[in-house]
Amino acid sequence: MLSGQNWLSVTTTGGPLSTDLYELTMMAGYYSAGFTGQATFELYVRSLPPNRSYLVAAGLEQALDYLEQLHFDRDDIAHLRTLPGLERIRADFFDEYLPRFRFTGDAWAVPEGTPVFPPEPLLRITAPMPQAQLVETALLAVIGFQTSVASRAARAVDAAAGRPVADFGARRAHGLEAGVLAARAAFLAGCESTSNVDAGRRFGIPVTGTMAHSWVMAFPDELSAFCKYADIFGDAVMLVDTYDTEHAVRSIAASGLRPRAVRLDSGDLVALSRRVRSLLDAAGLRDTGIVVSSDLTEQRIADIVAVGAPIDGFGVGGALSTASDAPALGAIYKLVEIERDGVAVPIMKLSPGKQSYPGRKAIYRRVEHGLAIEDTMELDGDPPAAAGGPLLERVMEQGRRTGPRRPLIEMRARCLAAVNALPRDVRQIRDAASYPVRLGERLRQTIDRLSHAHR
Amino acid sequence: MLSGQNWLSVTTTGGPLSTDLYELTMMAGYYSAGFTGQATFELYVRSLPPNRSYLVAAGLEQALDYLEQLHFDRDDIAHLRTLPGLERIRADFFDEYLPRFRFTGDAWAVPEGTPVFPPEPLLRITAPMPQAQLVETALLAVIGFQTSVASRAARAVDAAAGRPVADFGARRAHGLEAGVLAARAAFLAGCESTSNVDAGRRFGIPVTGTMAHSWVMAFPDELSAFCKYADIFGDAVMLVDTYDTEHAVRSIAASGLRPRAVRLDSGDLVALSRRVRSLLDAAGLRDTGIVVSSDLTEQRIADIVAVGAPIDGFGVGGALSTASDAPALGAIYKLVEIERDGVAVPIMKLSPGKQSYPGRKAIYRRVEHGLAIEDTMELDGDPPAAAGGPLLERVMEQGRRTGPRRPLIEMRARCLAAVNALPRDVRQIRDAASYPVRLGERLRQTIDRLSHAHR
Repeated sequence: MLSGQNWLSVTTTGGPLSTDLYELTMMAGYYSAGFTGQATFELYVRSLPPNRSYLVAAGLEQALDYLEQLHFDRDDIAHLRTLPGLERIRADFFDEYLPRFRFTGDAWAVPEGTPVFPPEPLLRITAPMPQAQLVETALLAVIGFQTSVASRAARAVDAAAGRPVADFGARRAHGLEAGVLAARAAFLAGCESTSNVDAGRRFGIPVTGTMAHSWVMAFPDELSAFCKYADIFGDAVMLVDTYDTEHAVRSIAASGLRPRAVRLDSGDLVALSRRVRSLLDAAGLRDTGIVVSSDLTEQRIADIVAVGAPIDGFGVGGALSTASDAPALGAIYKLVEIERDGVAVPIMKLSPGKQSYPGRKAIYRRVEHGLAIEDTMELDGDPPAAAGGPLLERVMEQGRRTGPRRPLIEMRARCLAAVNALPRDVRQIRDAASYPVRLGERLRQTIDRLSHAHR
Repeated sequence: MLSGQNWLSVTTTGGPLSTDLYELTMMAGYYSAGFTGQATFELYVRSLPPNRSYLVAAGLEQALDYLEQLHFDRDDIAHLRTLPGLERIRADFFDEYLPRFRFTGDAWAVPEGTPVFPPEPLLRITAPMPQAQLVETALLAVIGFQTSVASRAARAVDAAAGRPVADFGARRAHGLEAGVLAARAAFLAGCESTSNVDAGRRFGIPVTGTMAHSWVMAFPDELSAFCKYADIFGDAVMLVDTYDTEHAVRSIAASGLRPRAVRLDSGDLVALSRRVRSLLDAAGLRDTGIVVSSDLTEQRIADIVAVGAPIDGFGVGGALSTASDAPALGAIYKLVEIERDGVAVPIMKLSPGKQSYPGRKAIYRRVEHGLAIEDTMELDGDPPAAAGGPLLERVMEQGRRTGPRRPLIEMRARCLAAVNALPRDVRQIRDAASYPVRLGERLRQTIDRLSHAHR
């Protein structure tokens, strides 16, 4: 296994122009206005999407890669000069500022794989205003996407109650890069493996695969397809639903083949798995497992597990790789503090239904007897009494990572433990309870003060 | 504008390993079994997702790039030798077949921007079996994703009834590559512009941007923020909802600023736009437009248009870039014909609820007085009488494009015309009528014959 050296660089497709125009015009505007003091932004989600009672933070590794690699090459700058709005900007912005541009800020974040609850910040950036502004779009896309996938995957893994869940989502992903990043987030959140070979290579994730319907269809009859497959691949997983599942299993049994498992990909998976289990057992194929796929979600997995269907593993596709029930998480990146005349001032937006939380914040999680009890979000500073340990840690200082990359397999183990430490009722697949997030005293006073200042 | 030379290469993040393991093991299996005759696969969607009455084909350009560039370098091959299953494959597969591997097949497709109706094929591939199999995952991801976005975008554009729709979805997209490809698909389907600068550069899409909340929050008071902005950028679009929308508009009016437009990003957009319009008009700012964003969907746009709110343009985010109500389109790629003993044999899968349609197919669209009336899907060959013109055209021959890249702006114009040619009731945003797709006589007979052959 790789230990994370070989990561997917988001800048292969991204880079400084992979952003909204307004990030670049704002940056130019701040530069032109001499607004280059420190600003602090926090990235968070306003509220949980439907079917979620917690989120799992993910994508930080790629976000830090983006920040470390960010720069403008000659072609980028030439293109920027042509953009609407930017034609009015002074030449020194293009000639002096952009060629030397690097991200030199600091970042704090909750470690990847940590369960978080809106509106807790997943990431906080403090940097000169033009820099802190520019990175908004990319950070939201990179962290928002992987966080959506990890949050869905954690539920699927939990629903499977110990049976392995494999990511089969590459073909449903939003392009090839998205498939690789989804596989990473799904593994981080507890999936056992991925079908995505590129993700396996880049991130050291175990890869798995079975058989395609086309293999069965390519042969004049199904049994020849299975026999040839066993000739070539040995005790593999055989796909038995192309024509008639029970007929296929009977012919496998009668032929003396001993597949490692059979895969069901259509029909009533519970009823079918029971009949197939009986057929396999009757033929002495007790070691042949049954794995299923076919538009699975955590709800379907929970139902299958609840009725005790003899199913040994799940392959989940688009539900993971597109986080299909909540594909747009709605992460936001809001200015919370700005330097004015050398003094850091907390800031708050008051738009109806879209208020922000002012000031640099810390999150504390109180854990008792191995169970998370309550989070407190408070202005950074002295922690409230008995609030528990802080979740945000410093991950970047002056534009450089503060520590080595964490191996994905370690982050996965931490994620599984942290999700297991959430209250049972918060982890329920349906009708989950809410987890309490308190606002600290200093934060509440600041909100009150700023809400009135603009009335 | 670029005319399409500078496209996004999916292989920057993709390449031959950006696929499911089973595509590679199947390919090795076909090679080992001597199964190298011609096979034909068709890519299609089984049924329409909720809220869709048609799909808009998109992503072909990137799919053809992928096919043309596909090859295995030394590192890819070294990695493949380590994969589960492949360790049993003969050395000549790695030493001779893979180093020389190129996609040498033919492809037929409906042009990008064409409305299609399940289960019509968007793409057909005929190639030696190992090649035709390998490309499944990437083709599904690339075409499936852009088709989902284009299908959503066409509805948003239609709902806006002539008012411009801008893609603001980069921050919600599934990574940076997905944001760029979503912008392409959205423009193809009729959006006027994108906020994504990289998409603008790669595809020649007009880019647009407004102002960030952070700009307003960075200044000690809102009016200073607006004035400084106008100093730097001139008659730009000003974001007026950070604290109190009406107050912001009044202070703009009183200060003599003349923004090109104001943007509303929260609250009751209909009521607010009316009040803001009155305030602007009363101040003589009749040329200042009102544009809105804030979690817009085609349904919300249709409602806004229906009540005649004075709104001049829409910025749409995650609804476009993630196709949020149908993010996993469920495109499939099925073997429909295979060469056996030198003869092409139609093939059909019978899995419950997942049957496939056998044989190479053509689609004919009957158009009368500029209106599409009915499609017919029939086995390739003589067209049925009065069935209309064929939709699929040959786009690749022996692994090479048959013609030049089409400029995106031309495909967009064709798309707008083709969507406009659909019956009114099929285009309705809510409760749309179904468009009729008939199966031709020869296709029906083949389905009957193959359904019985396996009973």
